[in-house]
Amino acid sequence: MTDIDRRGFVGASALGLIGLLPREGATRTARTQSQSPEAQDVTRLLAAYVVHARPDDLPAPVRTEACRTLLNWAGCAVGGAQQATVDIAVRALRPFSGPAQASLLGRPERMDALHAALLNGISSHVLDFDDTHLKTVIHPAGPVASAILALAETRPVSGRDFLHALVLGAEVECRIGNAVYPAHYDCGWHITGTTGVFGAAAASGRLLGLSEQQMRWAFGLAATQPVGLREMFGTMTKSFHPGRAAQNGLTAALLAKEGFTSTDVALEGRTGWAHVLSTACDYSQITRGLGDRYEILLNTYKPFACGVVLHPIIDACLQLRAEHHLTSEAIDRIDLAVHPLVLELTGKRTPQTGLEGKFSVYFAAAIAIAAGAAGVRQFTDEWVRQPAVVALRDRVTATVDPSIGEAQARAAITLKDGRRLEKFVEHAVGSVERPLTDADLDAKVRDLCEGVLPARQTDRLIDVCRHIEREPSASVIAEAGHR
Amino acid sequence: MTDIDRRGFVGASALGLIGLLPREGATRTARTQSQSPEAQDVTRLLAAYVVHARPDDLPAPVRTEACRTLLNWAGCAVGGAQQATVDIAVRALRPFSGPAQASLLGRPERMDALHAALLNGISSHVLDFDDTHLKTVIHPAGPVASAILALAETRPVSGRDFLHALVLGAEVECRIGNAVYPAHYDCGWHITGTTGVFGAAAASGRLLGLSEQQMRWAFGLAATQPVGLREMFGTMTKSFHPGRAAQNGLTAALLAKEGFTSTDVALEGRTGWAHVLSTACDYSQITRGLGDRYEILLNTYKPFACGVVLHPIIDACLQLRAEHHLTSEAIDRIDLAVHPLVLELTGKRTPQTGLEGKFSVYFAAAIAIAAGAAGVRQFTDEWVRQPAVVALRDRVTATVDPSIGEAQARAAITLKDGRRLEKFVEHAVGSVERPLTDADLDAKVRDLCEGVLPARQTDRLIDVCRHIEREPSASVIAEAGHR
Repeated sequence: MTDIDRRGFVGASALGLIGLLPREGATRTARTQSQSPEAQDVTRLLAAYVVHARPDDLPAPVRTEACRTLLNWAGCAVGGAQQATVDIAVRALRPFSGPAQASLLGRPERMDALHAALLNGISSHVLDFDDTHLKTVIHPAGPVASAILALAETRPVSGRDFLHALVLGAEVECRIGNAVYPAHYDCGWHITGTTGVFGAAAASGRLLGLSEQQMRWAFGLAATQPVGLREMFGTMTKSFHPGRAAQNGLTAALLAKEGFTSTDVALEGRTGWAHVLSTACDYSQITRGLGDRYEILLNTYKPFACGVVLHPIIDACLQLRAEHHLTSEAIDRIDLAVHPLVLELTGKRTPQTGLEGKFSVYFAAAIAIAAGAAGVRQFTDEWVRQPAVVALRDRVTATVDPSIGEAQARAAITLKDGRRLEKFVEHAVGSVERPLTDADLDAKVRDLCEGVLPARQTDRLIDVCRHIEREPSASVIAEAGHR
Repeated sequence: MTDIDRRGFVGASALGLIGLLPREGATRTARTQSQSPEAQDVTRLLAAYVVHARPDDLPAPVRTEACRTLLNWAGCAVGGAQQATVDIAVRALRPFSGPAQASLLGRPERMDALHAALLNGISSHVLDFDDTHLKTVIHPAGPVASAILALAETRPVSGRDFLHALVLGAEVECRIGNAVYPAHYDCGWHITGTTGVFGAAAASGRLLGLSEQQMRWAFGLAATQPVGLREMFGTMTKSFHPGRAAQNGLTAALLAKEGFTSTDVALEGRTGWAHVLSTACDYSQITRGLGDRYEILLNTYKPFACGVVLHPIIDACLQLRAEHHLTSEAIDRIDLAVHPLVLELTGKRTPQTGLEGKFSVYFAAAIAIAAGAAGVRQFTDEWVRQPAVVALRDRVTATVDPSIGEAQARAAITLKDGRRLEKFVEHAVGSVERPLTDADLDAKVRDLCEGVLPARQTDRLIDVCRHIEREPSASVIAEAGHR
């Protein structure tokens, strides 16, 4: 515990004060919405919760959703494992790997647990197809599941404890995200990496049996290793973020377990994580209702292999295509009305690769019409360069409409015959309001695993993820997902 | 290369505009002092310099200073390697280590190069005795030398190339530091970890023979893994920062070498490192005079085993002690006039451990008088708790004086006989203006290595560091420093 003066720590009793602060003293300072007791003790309260929460207290819907989260993550990691991003990372880092302790999903290699956490985290995000906590745009599973699956291959961890740790890790990262979103994201941080390291530390630390003090240190070690600037979007480094968050969080827990000390006030300290990495923070979002409400119930799974910001547009185009049996050739133009974030994140006019296609609202609309799908087999270099798709893409416009919410979109298609078709999407398929069904999720995982795992092994992977609490050892997930 | 819009990137032609900006768009925005061409191209220019600089162009004084930097770093790492911080980190991480590729200085273990970079970086900083670039309070050697020594044990690296890479790495981190100091540090970042990762990436990347494109990617991978919040000061996690920066920078270079892509505008991008991690940035500090002036010439080596912020006070007390043959018992009180940073960083009134003693201006003054020294053998639990030292410590006051510069201090000692002695220090010993002599540096290294390495091996370590350019293989440093 350091005794650094807290004078930069401002309490503001009124709501609505969240926003940019003038600088106070030497430190950029985050605001709290209320000078609640939690605001002064948030790291301790969160650590105590993670250490003492009981698996038996998890409500059934939370367990079910956690299994869906796990399954979606495993499918994405298997499906992503063949990407060049993962090949390169394995090639670069394998010479430094320790004992073959842990499996890479969807690949034949085994590496030490820290590297396995990194690589499975990369694989699970590389297709941009992983789970999303829409309130914060965090992808919760990548950092957490990648860390604890690797850990579960180095020591006995029951399926029940594994699922509980996954829930706790997701809870920690999403609650920290809730406290600082959107201010923190707006600063330029990739929130999955910066909060994910806490989630990974919490879940790993729980499985390692950390004391309250050790858990606080683990949070300190997590806080000091945030990963991810948004500048990296559109490059291989984006998927490095959840992987490195998993590895850093696991490292934090391993060090804390052995007594490596850190601050006790990782989150709220005057030069702690919230003050340094955000311009606003409502600490009560972290601590209120711990154990009563679960953020994992708000987790969602993408039907489309790109950022969620594009989902309402793709959904609208797919619906219009199906309702009117549209073909690319019949279309004169597509005019999209979108939330500002859509153009900020996915404004690429002329993508050249599959990866760049995920950052192009224009390609997304075109491929939905041209292919009638927007899965992993559509975001490829081939489709992005296909002349008919390029031609349609160049007939797409996207305009920011201030009345359109983040979850919404409007597509207006003008046909060459003069007809004008329009579709407004309130909530895209795959959202909390229109969740992917279990059958759709299974189908998504099967599609991801096709050509990587034998069909029977995919069945087994789906089965162990859906019923992980039955398993004496969580390492069965790795066995089923390893190639 | 992403094509994210740069609208948040503000140019301001007038000097003096550095400071807090109102928020523009979605991003906290840093100011540049001038809309120079460099400001728009800084990552590319820096990467090109690191790739193409020639060892033969290094002026002789730069080589000499780089050898002093190397020697001071090696001595600190050997001397620090016995600390509990390092024991714990080795115990926690060794089960995950890869092949025994690289040595831990001052210890018997060998680990993979990435872990060796981490652990040597921790060892070199744990005593707070390493080199300091006073303009930015960066400790340049830890991140850079730890990374490239580990790398030099995995492939042939000549002593000449090694020293050149060390100079380049120090140049990169200190120039980036110059561009954002003090704004970035004031935000709460531990600047050694946050800029050190670039230094480690640059030096490692140079030795790996990265192309210009790969070096830009390495900078992107470095930018996205900043390490270190100031909240961790006073805990074991502080010395984790230069170690992790070394490991992250080396990882960045290894990934980039294999083609792992990242942004081309790591430093200046709208959601790049400078905008996200600082409130101000003068990019011209990074690019102007590259190859003409060298930041390593401003590097300094501590005579005292604590933060440089305490050095003027210790120097003043030691001078008064020597001049007046002072003893603790003769002293009624010690009144210090200090720069504000002294109390902000080292305001601990009642330290309980040797580590905490380094964060107490009160203990620092007391130990200088009581022991007549402030080396590694004085910042111990025993001295911190010694009753006579505690009694003197409690008779020390420290007052912020706005007229006192960061490098200055005034000590006024009132004796029990009523006399009042005063000493003003303009530049402490060990500063750029009053550098440690070669003989003093050798003596410091011998003191650090005593009891760890045989005297003859210490001689060899001093010799190879002083004359590393003669050595066909830089790995001799590791052989000489390994236990």
